[in-house]
Amino acid sequence: MEVEAISQHTSRSFNKDLAGIHNLVLNMGGLVEDQFERAVKAIAEADSELGLGVAESDRQVNEMEMRIDEECRRILATRAPAAGDLRLIVAAMKTITDLERIGDETEKIGKLASRLATVKRPSTNFRELRNLAQHVKGMIRDALDAFARLDVQQGLAVMKADKVVDEEYEAIARQSLTFMLEDPRTITREMDVSWAARALERIGDHTKNICEHAIYMAHGTDIRHTSLKSVESEVRQAGSMKESSP
Amino acid sequence: MEVEAISQHTSRSFNKDLAGIHNLVLNMGGLVEDQFERAVKAIAEADSELGLGVAESDRQVNEMEMRIDEECRRILATRAPAAGDLRLIVAAMKTITDLERIGDETEKIGKLASRLATVKRPSTNFRELRNLAQHVKGMIRDALDAFARLDVQQGLAVMKADKVVDEEYEAIARQSLTFMLEDPRTITREMDVSWAARALERIGDHTKNICEHAIYMAHGTDIRHTSLKSVESEVRQAGSMKESSP
Repeated sequence: MEVEAISQHTSRSFNKDLAGIHNLVLNMGGLVEDQFERAVKAIAEADSELGLGVAESDRQVNEMEMRIDEECRRILATRAPAAGDLRLIVAAMKTITDLERIGDETEKIGKLASRLATVKRPSTNFRELRNLAQHVKGMIRDALDAFARLDVQQGLAVMKADKVVDEEYEAIARQSLTFMLEDPRTITREMDVSWAARALERIGDHTKNICEHAIYMAHGTDIRHTSLKSVESEVRQAGSMKESSP
Repeated sequence: MEVEAISQHTSRSFNKDLAGIHNLVLNMGGLVEDQFERAVKAIAEADSELGLGVAESDRQVNEMEMRIDEECRRILATRAPAAGDLRLIVAAMKTITDLERIGDETEKIGKLASRLATVKRPSTNFRELRNLAQHVKGMIRDALDAFARLDVQQGLAVMKADKVVDEEYEAIARQSLTFMLEDPRTITREMDVSWAARALERIGDHTKNICEHAIYMAHGTDIRHTSLKSVESEVRQAGSMKESSP
């Protein structure tokens, strides 16, 4: 009876540890989302101060990363997790690396926003860049959602969305080049637009990575460097196997 | 007696597992180094085909990453490593992420090299870019060396070198902008030069990360997001404590 109580206690506190990690990652994701929203607002509203302020919160993001990493290492060392528990820890450690990089890219966007705030704005007020940012923002939210709910379908949807983001980035880069060639006075501005678009494209890549980690966590398969099509068929197969199993 | 033999056997095969991981990471590093060398050669020698060929070997690098990752997960699940053994596994998993990203950036440099091979070359034949590439090449080699020999001092030296690389990158970006403003016919070329310089700067960041993982592995301290000065004093303190301990 006593032994059972202890083992229940151990497993309960272990579960608490695991849920804690899951929550911490989502909290870190929330921080990064806030940071990203401010950077994008700084571009849209030509708010130089807001743009520079983004760097401040990047410190918080970095601290979160180190704290979660330490907690994961502690759990690995003391709990020796296996199967799904181990997958959660590994996925968490990888996800926070991507979140931290999103924070870095967001900090860059903030700096570029503060520079763009001081130049003559094009008549479109950087519409394409703002559109791209909106798409990437949706991807970050959906990727965190996939991570939160271990939702493979949501993860796959984000991975598809990344293709659109890549295309939008290419279009902006081409447009910037055209502007520069047509009117060299726009060179400095359009270089900054290109860098910002590139940073957004990189953030799209990192959210895609987060979905890969979420799918690995939920599904136990490493789908990196695999075509979307074969991932989908694999997930479908695994799903139908589960359904048909007793 | 029998039990001892078994436990010796287990520990021997465990050590073999760990040494295997260490070696695999270094092999993957070697692949990435080769890939990088070819990308840089493609810039220097205006070799379009060589530049495009870099993408080929990126597939190998990606496969290595997944293979090592799987092996690390297997060891975590079956051996439940602790202390230094756990640190090796965690450092390996993080290092291969950085190596894979170096591979990605190198692939980009290869593509840019193949484009740069077709345009009118400046009289300097991209000397600044080639110099930056040489420095980054040295950093990759030294970072892998720090990882191979668990050499904290070497790791710190690479982290210092990254500051120089950042400065060189800034100088190239400024120079490209000046060229474009002075002669708009150089815009397309100089955009590519800027992207290539940026990719080199990112590779510098990743080699710095690898050194951080190597130092964590050797020293047990997470030094990310810490100033170089405080890292050095911490390492010194830990060293003198070791020396004065019985």
